[in-house]
Amino acid sequence: MTVRIAVTGAAGRMGRILIEAVSLNDGCELTAAIERPESSLIGADAGELAGLGKNGVAIVGDVSDVLNDFDVLIDFTIPAATLANAKACGQAGKGMVIGTTGFNAEQKTELDAAIAPIAICQASNFSTGVNLCFKLLDMAARVLGDDVDIEIVEAHHRHKIDAPSGTALSMGQVVADALGRDLEKVAVYGREGQTGARERETIGFATVRAGDIVGDHTVMFCADGERVEITHKASSRMSFARGAVRAAAWVNSQAAGRYDMQDVLGLK
Amino acid sequence: MTVRIAVTGAAGRMGRILIEAVSLNDGCELTAAIERPESSLIGADAGELAGLGKNGVAIVGDVSDVLNDFDVLIDFTIPAATLANAKACGQAGKGMVIGTTGFNAEQKTELDAAIAPIAICQASNFSTGVNLCFKLLDMAARVLGDDVDIEIVEAHHRHKIDAPSGTALSMGQVVADALGRDLEKVAVYGREGQTGARERETIGFATVRAGDIVGDHTVMFCADGERVEITHKASSRMSFARGAVRAAAWVNSQAAGRYDMQDVLGLK
Amino acid sequence: MTVRIAVTGAAGRMGRILIEAVSLNDGCELTAAIERPESSLIGADAGELAGLGKNGVAIVGDVSDVLNDFDVLIDFTIPAATLANAKACGQAGKGMVIGTTGFNAEQKTELDAAIAPIAICQASNFSTGVNLCFKLLDMAARVLGDDVDIEIVEAHHRHKIDAPSGTALSMGQVVADALGRDLEKVAVYGREGQTGARERETIGFATVRAGDIVGDHTVMFCADGERVEITHKASSRMSFARGAVRAAAWVNSQAAGRYDMQDVLGLK
Amino acid sequence: MTVRIAVTGAAGRMGRILIEAVSLNDGCELTAAIERPESSLIGADAGELAGLGKNGVAIVGDVSDVLNDFDVLIDFTIPAATLANAKACGQAGKGMVIGTTGFNAEQKTELDAAIAPIAICQASNFSTGVNLCFKLLDMAARVLGDDVDIEIVEAHHRHKIDAPSGTALSMGQVVADALGRDLEKVAVYGREGQTGARERETIGFATVRAGDIVGDHTVMFCADGERVEITHKASSRMSFARGAVRAAAWVNSQAAGRYDMQDVLGLK
Repeated sequence: MTVRIAVTGAAGRMGRILIEAVSLNDGCELTAAIERPESSLIGADAGELAGLGKNGVAIVGDVSDVLNDFDVLIDFTIPAATLANAKACGQAGKGMVIGTTGFNAEQKTELDAAIAPIAICQASNFSTGVNLCFKLLDMAARVLGDDVDIEIVEAHHRHKIDAPSGTALSMGQVVADALGRDLEKVAVYGREGQTGARERETIGFATVRAGDIVGDHTVMFCADGERVEITHKASSRMSFARGAVRAAAWVNSQAAGRYDMQDVLGLK
Repeated sequence: MTVRIAVTGAAGRMGRILIEAVSLNDGCELTAAIERPESSLIGADAGELAGLGKNGVAIVGDVSDVLNDFDVLIDFTIPAATLANAKACGQAGKGMVIGTTGFNAEQKTELDAAIAPIAICQASNFSTGVNLCFKLLDMAARVLGDDVDIEIVEAHHRHKIDAPSGTALSMGQVVADALGRDLEKVAVYGREGQTGARERETIGFATVRAGDIVGDHTVMFCADGERVEITHKASSRMSFARGAVRAAAWVNSQAAGRYDMQDVLGLK
Repeated sequence: MTVRIAVTGAAGRMGRILIEAVSLNDGCELTAAIERPESSLIGADAGELAGLGKNGVAIVGDVSDVLNDFDVLIDFTIPAATLANAKACGQAGKGMVIGTTGFNAEQKTELDAAIAPIAICQASNFSTGVNLCFKLLDMAARVLGDDVDIEIVEAHHRHKIDAPSGTALSMGQVVADALGRDLEKVAVYGREGQTGARERETIGFATVRAGDIVGDHTVMFCADGERVEITHKASSRMSFARGAVRAAAWVNSQAAGRYDMQDVLGLK
Repeated sequence: MTVRIAVTGAAGRMGRILIEAVSLNDGCELTAAIERPESSLIGADAGELAGLGKNGVAIVGDVSDVLNDFDVLIDFTIPAATLANAKACGQAGKGMVIGTTGFNAEQKTELDAAIAPIAICQASNFSTGVNLCFKLLDMAARVLGDDVDIEIVEAHHRHKIDAPSGTALSMGQVVADALGRDLEKVAVYGREGQTGARERETIGFATVRAGDIVGDHTVMFCADGERVEITHKASSRMSFARGAVRAAAWVNSQAAGRYDMQDVLGLK
């Protein structure tokens, strides 16, 4: 049975990609699209806006106008908007996939209450590939152990304002946990001048910031004579969008409750 | 307790690297080194020959001269020499690690008889990293399934006479098995001209032959928006040598029998 | 002085990226945007459509309505539309950048007549990076000569229907020309089975088709002990869009005539 | 005419690779090999020691014993040994290739005097590829200019005690010079925490220290939509050895004087 999907923030960059991701998933269909009521794109065809050709779904300015038209709402917007949507979905018994970040403590409490009656999936990273890599890294670290030097190289676009990336740090944490090391003690974030020879237990992070790189991560396990590398490359928000749509399809058949991508992918 | 290691073919390229690999393994010590009796290097210091500085082990021309000096013999030579060594080790109760290839049927039968009383490890590939990668590939293929395109890129030196490499084909087999595909049907070994769009179930192989590349393999799992890559790079015979020494240390504590690298690494 | 740019096909994928590329170029400003008159997006704000926020340029259905509003028209559409635009621009004395392909012989003749009074830039590839790489490859081949093995690896998305890519073949041609080799004779497009050792004069092509890879090309020059690699990676149509906008700014100050990207970049 | 080559430090790691490199160069022949007189390998066959099979050249303990047997001496040893060899070669009118480093001021003066009568090539890096890359980087930086972010990633083995590598810094200097930037002001050697968005004029260095990586360098030029990368990978000392032998062949036909690799390769 096809799951009927609504996308909010439909005219934003992530919204348009979510609309495309829905169209690529055989088990889902876009049946509603919502945008801020003041947008000049209210009334436009959602498919045409996403560059897919007309699909007959006109963009509306309020989720309340389309509550009967979908099963699960995908929401990657801002906390205030997501909260309002969660209240509407909670009352209507519609599932949600929430990629919005930045809720403050008060908003979190409100959100908890709003979604209590429904099934939702909330995650910090919706990428299937990243979640898989965490598992691969754990296995590699356990097999190779202290026979290898471990280094993490990540590259992101010029606009990223922090380093290393959160994903790189999570990868380091997975490896450190597998080896019984304390990441805070063994992490090295840059090398300059007379560094001395490398200590085996070190986990090195190297960061590149350049151009429009969406997000590359490579973890290297290097022994004398060979190395194993596990790499993830995001090429577009589509990786997150596809994961979010996969989560929406999965959420639709779950009991009320709060889930994450590990649940969706069966990696727990 | 330190395991006492003998290396035969000690003056050859692989022999010298085995001597170095022994010196890098804390649980092992080189205590004997054997070379063909007609070599000009008989009597030379094995450590100095391997470029490590003198280690006091003089190269001898016959394993019989040093049978009391070691626990496990590592042998990467030729079938006739390995057979003779196996008979000596079998009678003396010394373990063996055998990397020699090319035994004919008769030699295999002789070898089986010779090693019956002892523990040996024999493998087609002693690299820890390659064996690990097979496991990672199986896991990745099962999680990503039919949502990705899978391609295998391998690069080797200009002297390699076949393509794709045996390791690349083994990697393809692991992936095909995990996905229930028949590798013979889905493998594509080159693309030229009007190929049409890619079929999802295809597994593509791309080969590079250039310079002195020891052996690079990358398996790519590509979805819309992201890709996961698992890469193995061999930089020297040291990868095989280190695996062989790890196997020697492990063999020393095993009951009589024939083992392979999957046993040594606990990946079975 | 800021160059006033019009973009046609403004609601299409390439049109939206061209609008963004104009906004990223300090010397240019978007002053007009045209789309097919039957589009539901006529009248929408071009900036908002491109995901940039409102910029006050409403999309119109005919270039004739905005002929006084721009200096140079960028046109990546279809031959019939481009021909009509060329006639309008030719009469109004407006420059053009033409990325449209697929003109038949008759259309080419019509186009030649239409653009005779104006300066235009027409190219098969508007990427600055690709054009630079051709120059780097020529230099590298001349210096390294017959001391290296040369291999070209290219990767594109699953929808590409031919192999190797036209850009890969052009790169091979540059290298072959620099070395005095006949590409048809030395090109190898796939390796399978007992290939024998590599011949030095060979130029190998390896193709990957997977996922949504926009276009990666690497040329490897491999000697014993070292290799040099020259790599181009396209991450989006933005590479072509930025080149097209650079061309538009350049065209605006040229005498009537037909130019290409080599002229724009000063690489001739 | 074949150039007759002598190698000193013949039993050391670099010496053995130099012997192999001579055998790979059609214009050269190994005719003498020298090692410290106290080595246990005096009298051994140089070819066999290098793993090439016997070549009939016995290792001797003093260059004076073989002064009539060669045209050019290749010396990658230590300052004191090289000084003694330079005096002998200077008096005998034999050319030299000098890869020894670490001369103090007094030794430099002595060396200058010793080599005055002969042609020598002395360089900090004998790799053809690295010298070519410097030229490619200069060209790329001039064409791409301020439209790109430039980052340099280098990886070396675990024993390297300084960072970034001297070669990486030289690459950064080439790029900075081409763009009129002051490397000291624009270099960034590590990123951690809240770094803010990237400044365009920055040149970032990322270092990896792991395993036995001989030396990888990649310079990335990243724009929106595309990137160009120029990469050098050393896989063994053979890259330096081959360059040194190429220099020896070239030196043999030069007038007395001091040359470097830029002279040898015609890149000046």
